[in-house]
Amino acid sequence: MIEIELDKLHEECGVVAVFGHSEAAKLCYLGLHALQHRGQESAGIAASDGHRLNCYKAMGLVADIFSGTTLQKLPGTHAIGHTRYSTAGDSALLNAQPIQVDCNKGQIAIAHNGNLVNAAELRKKFELAGSIFQTSSDTEIVLHLIAQSRETTLADAMADALRRIVGAFSFVLATYDHIFAARDPRGFRPLAMGRIPGKDGAADAIVFASETCAFDLVGAEYIRDVKPGELIVVGADGIQSHFYAPALEQSQCIFEQVYFARPDSLVFGGSVQAAREQMGRQLAREAPVEADLVVGVPDSGLTAALGYASESGIPLQFGLVRNHYVGRTFIEPEQRVRDFGVKLKLNPVRHLLKGKRVILIDDSIVRGTTSQKIVRLVRDAGATEVHMRISCPPTTSPCYYGVDTPERRHLIAAQKTVDEVREFIGADSLSYLSLEGLRLSCGEPKGESHYCTSCYTGHYPTGYVDLHQVRPVEVVSK
Amino acid sequence: MIEIELDKLHEECGVVAVFGHSEAAKLCYLGLHALQHRGQESAGIAASDGHRLNCYKAMGLVADIFSGTTLQKLPGTHAIGHTRYSTAGDSALLNAQPIQVDCNKGQIAIAHNGNLVNAAELRKKFELAGSIFQTSSDTEIVLHLIAQSRETTLADAMADALRRIVGAFSFVLATYDHIFAARDPRGFRPLAMGRIPGKDGAADAIVFASETCAFDLVGAEYIRDVKPGELIVVGADGIQSHFYAPALEQSQCIFEQVYFARPDSLVFGGSVQAAREQMGRQLAREAPVEADLVVGVPDSGLTAALGYASESGIPLQFGLVRNHYVGRTFIEPEQRVRDFGVKLKLNPVRHLLKGKRVILIDDSIVRGTTSQKIVRLVRDAGATEVHMRISCPPTTSPCYYGVDTPERRHLIAAQKTVDEVREFIGADSLSYLSLEGLRLSCGEPKGESHYCTSCYTGHYPTGYVDLHQVRPVEVVSK
Amino acid sequence: MIEIELDKLHEECGVVAVFGHSEAAKLCYLGLHALQHRGQESAGIAASDGHRLNCYKAMGLVADIFSGTTLQKLPGTHAIGHTRYSTAGDSALLNAQPIQVDCNKGQIAIAHNGNLVNAAELRKKFELAGSIFQTSSDTEIVLHLIAQSRETTLADAMADALRRIVGAFSFVLATYDHIFAARDPRGFRPLAMGRIPGKDGAADAIVFASETCAFDLVGAEYIRDVKPGELIVVGADGIQSHFYAPALEQSQCIFEQVYFARPDSLVFGGSVQAAREQMGRQLAREAPVEADLVVGVPDSGLTAALGYASESGIPLQFGLVRNHYVGRTFIEPEQRVRDFGVKLKLNPVRHLLKGKRVILIDDSIVRGTTSQKIVRLVRDAGATEVHMRISCPPTTSPCYYGVDTPERRHLIAAQKTVDEVREFIGADSLSYLSLEGLRLSCGEPKGESHYCTSCYTGHYPTGYVDLHQVRPVEVVSK
Amino acid sequence: MIEIELDKLHEECGVVAVFGHSEAAKLCYLGLHALQHRGQESAGIAASDGHRLNCYKAMGLVADIFSGTTLQKLPGTHAIGHTRYSTAGDSALLNAQPIQVDCNKGQIAIAHNGNLVNAAELRKKFELAGSIFQTSSDTEIVLHLIAQSRETTLADAMADALRRIVGAFSFVLATYDHIFAARDPRGFRPLAMGRIPGKDGAADAIVFASETCAFDLVGAEYIRDVKPGELIVVGADGIQSHFYAPALEQSQCIFEQVYFARPDSLVFGGSVQAAREQMGRQLAREAPVEADLVVGVPDSGLTAALGYASESGIPLQFGLVRNHYVGRTFIEPEQRVRDFGVKLKLNPVRHLLKGKRVILIDDSIVRGTTSQKIVRLVRDAGATEVHMRISCPPTTSPCYYGVDTPERRHLIAAQKTVDEVREFIGADSLSYLSLEGLRLSCGEPKGESHYCTSCYTGHYPTGYVDLHQVRPVEVVSK
Repeated sequence: MIEIELDKLHEECGVVAVFGHSEAAKLCYLGLHALQHRGQESAGIAASDGHRLNCYKAMGLVADIFSGTTLQKLPGTHAIGHTRYSTAGDSALLNAQPIQVDCNKGQIAIAHNGNLVNAAELRKKFELAGSIFQTSSDTEIVLHLIAQSRETTLADAMADALRRIVGAFSFVLATYDHIFAARDPRGFRPLAMGRIPGKDGAADAIVFASETCAFDLVGAEYIRDVKPGELIVVGADGIQSHFYAPALEQSQCIFEQVYFARPDSLVFGGSVQAAREQMGRQLAREAPVEADLVVGVPDSGLTAALGYASESGIPLQFGLVRNHYVGRTFIEPEQRVRDFGVKLKLNPVRHLLKGKRVILIDDSIVRGTTSQKIVRLVRDAGATEVHMRISCPPTTSPCYYGVDTPERRHLIAAQKTVDEVREFIGADSLSYLSLEGLRLSCGEPKGESHYCTSCYTGHYPTGYVDLHQVRPVEVVSK
Repeated sequence: MIEIELDKLHEECGVVAVFGHSEAAKLCYLGLHALQHRGQESAGIAASDGHRLNCYKAMGLVADIFSGTTLQKLPGTHAIGHTRYSTAGDSALLNAQPIQVDCNKGQIAIAHNGNLVNAAELRKKFELAGSIFQTSSDTEIVLHLIAQSRETTLADAMADALRRIVGAFSFVLATYDHIFAARDPRGFRPLAMGRIPGKDGAADAIVFASETCAFDLVGAEYIRDVKPGELIVVGADGIQSHFYAPALEQSQCIFEQVYFARPDSLVFGGSVQAAREQMGRQLAREAPVEADLVVGVPDSGLTAALGYASESGIPLQFGLVRNHYVGRTFIEPEQRVRDFGVKLKLNPVRHLLKGKRVILIDDSIVRGTTSQKIVRLVRDAGATEVHMRISCPPTTSPCYYGVDTPERRHLIAAQKTVDEVREFIGADSLSYLSLEGLRLSCGEPKGESHYCTSCYTGHYPTGYVDLHQVRPVEVVSK
Repeated sequence: MIEIELDKLHEECGVVAVFGHSEAAKLCYLGLHALQHRGQESAGIAASDGHRLNCYKAMGLVADIFSGTTLQKLPGTHAIGHTRYSTAGDSALLNAQPIQVDCNKGQIAIAHNGNLVNAAELRKKFELAGSIFQTSSDTEIVLHLIAQSRETTLADAMADALRRIVGAFSFVLATYDHIFAARDPRGFRPLAMGRIPGKDGAADAIVFASETCAFDLVGAEYIRDVKPGELIVVGADGIQSHFYAPALEQSQCIFEQVYFARPDSLVFGGSVQAAREQMGRQLAREAPVEADLVVGVPDSGLTAALGYASESGIPLQFGLVRNHYVGRTFIEPEQRVRDFGVKLKLNPVRHLLKGKRVILIDDSIVRGTTSQKIVRLVRDAGATEVHMRISCPPTTSPCYYGVDTPERRHLIAAQKTVDEVREFIGADSLSYLSLEGLRLSCGEPKGESHYCTSCYTGHYPTGYVDLHQVRPVEVVSK
Repeated sequence: MIEIELDKLHEECGVVAVFGHSEAAKLCYLGLHALQHRGQESAGIAASDGHRLNCYKAMGLVADIFSGTTLQKLPGTHAIGHTRYSTAGDSALLNAQPIQVDCNKGQIAIAHNGNLVNAAELRKKFELAGSIFQTSSDTEIVLHLIAQSRETTLADAMADALRRIVGAFSFVLATYDHIFAARDPRGFRPLAMGRIPGKDGAADAIVFASETCAFDLVGAEYIRDVKPGELIVVGADGIQSHFYAPALEQSQCIFEQVYFARPDSLVFGGSVQAAREQMGRQLAREAPVEADLVVGVPDSGLTAALGYASESGIPLQFGLVRNHYVGRTFIEPEQRVRDFGVKLKLNPVRHLLKGKRVILIDDSIVRGTTSQKIVRLVRDAGATEVHMRISCPPTTSPCYYGVDTPERRHLIAAQKTVDEVREFIGADSLSYLSLEGLRLSCGEPKGESHYCTSCYTGHYPTGYVDLHQVRPVEVVSK
């Protein structure tokens, strides 16, 4: 059996929240379904029945976890949900979210997208003071902070807690009567607010989600983003906005635009699809090459390929076909078929590629192994030249803000020059989009900087990365 | 819960066979995986251990049915495989294939893609003569014919049997020492022959598959198609070709080109992807319209959209995004979200569509219900005009040759004029590709006719359709 | 992992039928549940909706196979059911029963308890004549015989078929409007008829089952046994009894009394529990020994132990406790625990056994391996003497009438003298009940012979055993 | 579907621990298997690999939860395990045990059998001080107490924690290098210590288990019980015994003897089987009645029935047969079969009971509903008189020490006189064993009192029961 994983970076989470709707848990479920690409390992929903929270979470895909029966056990008009990706090492149900606790502020459920960089330090401090930790998740720390805050209202205690943590976070929380949504002061991760118009004069339902594609499925309209440093409280008494901290220099994750987010989403207020087409166009301007065809690596490279083709005038072709029936593992023949893993997912269209000079467009090269195989597939299908174009700069540094990146030594662009990478993957030429070009494509005026680009630059906006993270509790449950 | 089925016709089967390879069953498994789009209901493999056949079949997807353990129970160097789509009514494991029996010709396993039109008549005759039938499949009849043939060799008995059946069939069969591949004299369904080069001077392995995309995954080269009326016998003594019947007027299923086959396959010796691009181009010539964007309905409409855009000069955009995590059923909110089922699969990219005149390209309209929803989605996303273009003629007649079509009264184009269909789906304009144009796109010189187009014309090549089919044995097993 | 199988013979099947009840399939399900001990490998039910039969069968236990949903797909007022034990070699779903076919006599479903001894001969004849076989079950032959009979009514065709087969059989069959029940002329296997009184003046429902414990669960009263050579037809027109063949010398399986049947059943019209107590009493008279305790090997040895204790005046004790949570396989420590497999199922009560002379009562010794371990367990728990008493004669010959026995060379009593067996199992003494004594215990007057005792005597009532059975079709499906 | 639950009280847990064995987790698994009767809802094991603890827990039966693969993920030479029964309301995986945390004392896993009566009070105190609670289990409190203890060694911190809790508890704990076993000062719940002799001069492995039947399966010898108020620490440095508190008046749960414990176990140092036989004998002396048969209600009433029969001289008969294939739920016919639920589990042997005066022996009557049905079954089978004898006093008060009892208003003996209960269940006579007689049967000399009998007397040894328990966190996960 082989693991069929293309060489991509993985998002760590998607969050969703609904307030004021008779089918709150069901809408969370649909929202999570739309956010499934942000995490396929586990999912969960916590819903308030008006008195207490009920929570259900399990390993697997959203549609497999939640059935009609399960959702019936989550009654109530407000709920939060979470979907999670995680590395094998701590793939624990106990780390699945929402995490729900009882404490002196009452019952609280929390769901988190992002990563705290002062988690280990805080955890150590709490342990010394006598606290116990049941998960290896940094999210648990936030609950301790809320519980131990001396503030007397929950909103104040949350603000207090949020001020003590450093890093990337978009949170949704639920209590028996409110939901809360908050973003870190740098705004690393997206979090959008929307509205489902009430029927027959009823009040609107308020929804939050990592991406607006979740709104489309539940019939919600986008209102605005939760702002960096903002804590929004939604209850029967209305919606209140608090700024628990001044916004710092904005550090929106640019890789959301490049790869993570669904193309039909708005993130950070802008269209992902439009940004990707611009990346392709800009790439055509920065790195033109004479060729017969432009081929995007499906699915994520297709839009940039369209942009490149439009800008360059070289025809776009669907020269690689993706097989959507492939799961995570597969039985491989013992007489190895070359590039078998990639072949299961992608098949070249021989007829199109034969005898052609091909420009391949992809969104990133992480370890380089998949790119090498794709280039080989395309050549084996008869292409005479293969020119690889990547719609972002070389990935040279790990992310500490919620993206699962390999260590630096596994990032091929951290270890090799562009030409060495080109040689490794076997392409005739290789170009990356410039950082400047990427920012421009994302609509950022020259000189301005609203994006975190640390994976390309190694410049970390928090100026602080907690490198000796405590080893997590190894708890496995199914 | 709602069933999430887009309004498409369904292929009924894919077949594969391997001879002369130490991992025959595993290669069948991979081949079936590549043919998964031809049938998602059940799959099976029968392999010869040199003395006897062992068969394993089950309901579900290929990758879920076969594990390493299961494949170990299918040792041997030749094997056949089958994947099946079927309507709910007779979704029985007992109807899953291969069907394997003992008879006076020894042990035989058979896998079938197609449909016999004289099945009911033959079955009745056999029943009167004292035969028993355990499945509702027409394939079982072929086994009775083989067993009762007076010919003394198996190849002769098969030829005898094949001459007695009428309709569409691409068969692969296995005995303890041979595999057989046959196509009906009109060549309705595809069946390709390929070769896996032997390593270190070993003999080549011979493979057969419904489509060549199966060859790509197992590292096989395409040799040629099995010819209409041909029976190929592969054994330790080599490959023999028999023409059990003269080829009749060729009636290749044109809908394989339009929708069924994978774009990376060759079927009937030609590239599917190329044909689809031509359909789009031809459609642009036949049915031009002033607009801002061309948007293909994913995934099957994308290639024709590319052709339409190229030919018309109107920019292609990925204005509809497909969610690939969707399974067959889903929990729907009680407060109905309009067009919910389609929304789960397709989401419009609002930013691209807003204020635009959009040409939507799809490959077919069956009942019209899905098209209506898609048009509405695109309009709700802000499109000012929606022009639907279909890359084949109106589907007006059911297929009796192996495609699962609804009855005529459910085919919208059989009940309404094109303009009425346009009105029903809510488009500003609607055009279908002409039959002439479709043939041309499939590379057919004017005036010639190698394709069955009965679903567009109601002209059935067999001149004979057995309409009062016996009601099948309703056997359900899991 | 180890297989946890005590050394017992296995029954091959249980059958049940219901006519004239609005919940026919549900009652079959309950009846099969009561007969679960007769077969744990697969189960199935075929029910008539008044026009057609619907059948559902699967691998596993009755309660796992049938859910409310499944039973809803089996509407109608008459149904038959089957539960099956089988050896690993041909544990195929395709061999599961009922087998249901279409033929010139209409649609027929059949369920069979027993074994035909002229199956291979008949199968060969049919194959030569051009029939195909899809299972390796001898039951399929009966369907061919029915289909090919020249009789014009189904009852006559069945009678015709039943006259052509030799061996042990209790059949139930269903067509769209009747059920049928038949027993072979020697009456090897039990088959009882009962009645569920109709409510509010409605007609009684008629039921058939291998054992009367099935009647108790569905609220039916025992009427009588189906007689050897009898074919009972139940329809809207009432109940008809046919004697398709004269009854031959009766050959009721005596091992039903010794071990197979549930103690709360009547089989062959007599109480199983009563017979077993008599076996114990008779054993005490035939093979007395001075001792402190009588301990039955649970669960099947308990009743004979009670009889032995009563007759001998030696106190009964529950000195071995059975763990009812044990499944079929189990993970074993690498540092082997002695007699681990038996220990998982049976634990000695040390306190009772310590320093005591123990008489162990069991119902049979097949290979001797389990008995050896049990004796050792009891000794290790401190017993000073262990005297084994078996409530039937030595098992020396395989059964050809529906019981799954090992080959003669694995039957310890066929290979060793009683004293050698005693030595092998490590007992201080060993005695078996005499054949005379066993018959007496089953209520048979001296000199009469209504029982088949071939497993003790090697005398086969059919005078004919088809030893070169055809190798079955190896079909595996899940 | 109906729930098939006989009317019994349920134990809440079994615990096991192993130190110094190369297959520690596997032995825990076997031990839990032997303790399966103490809890069928969830199970878990935490094992130390020498550096860290790894924990695996899930819902279900031990044999279903743990596979070879799972146990491989739990390497190391010491481990603890837990199996749990729980009421539906808080049947959460998050409440499954062991609970494992990180804290200032390092990593700790804990498994608990019993119930704390000051849990709510302590929890409230902790919450006020800023602690968070993730489960609704009282066990979590112990971990907070350990973490917040000012003692500097873990053993001292544990002793400190144990002194602060009140109630019933038998704990096993594990850290990376030690295991710990402790019992409350009153000794409510059993906890035995044993030894597996080391092979080839290796050191012995030390094991702990709720009952000694767990020792039998892993090949361990019983050493002694952990004493009330004792904390035993086992490490590479040997075994140390601490008395963290003076033993109080002993309050061993007498219901362990009556019903909970397996008959082949020693609990509180005595044989369960022997005690139960004495209960039956004593009952015969206290409540004789003229009758023809003594019938025990299987399985738990059988031993007392044996004692009653021996003492009274009235013959024992197995007049009720238990069906061991019954799961928890079952499909019931709509035309209700009377007493269906009980019939699925128990079937009367008509032949034995017909025309007889029957003494039924059972171990308890909780709500009375099952007893009513059993009496009716026996009567329907033809018994002329039914005399019910119960091998303990009337259950009149709920247990607060780890047994899941219904509220007082559902305990029939708390609401009705003995004669009213007799009338309710429909017996001709009804007698309970006296408390005196029960104590005597358990080997307690007159006047002494080592047992808790609060379920019969309402006298609670802790003199303190926390009635307004906090409502637990409703967390559901699978």
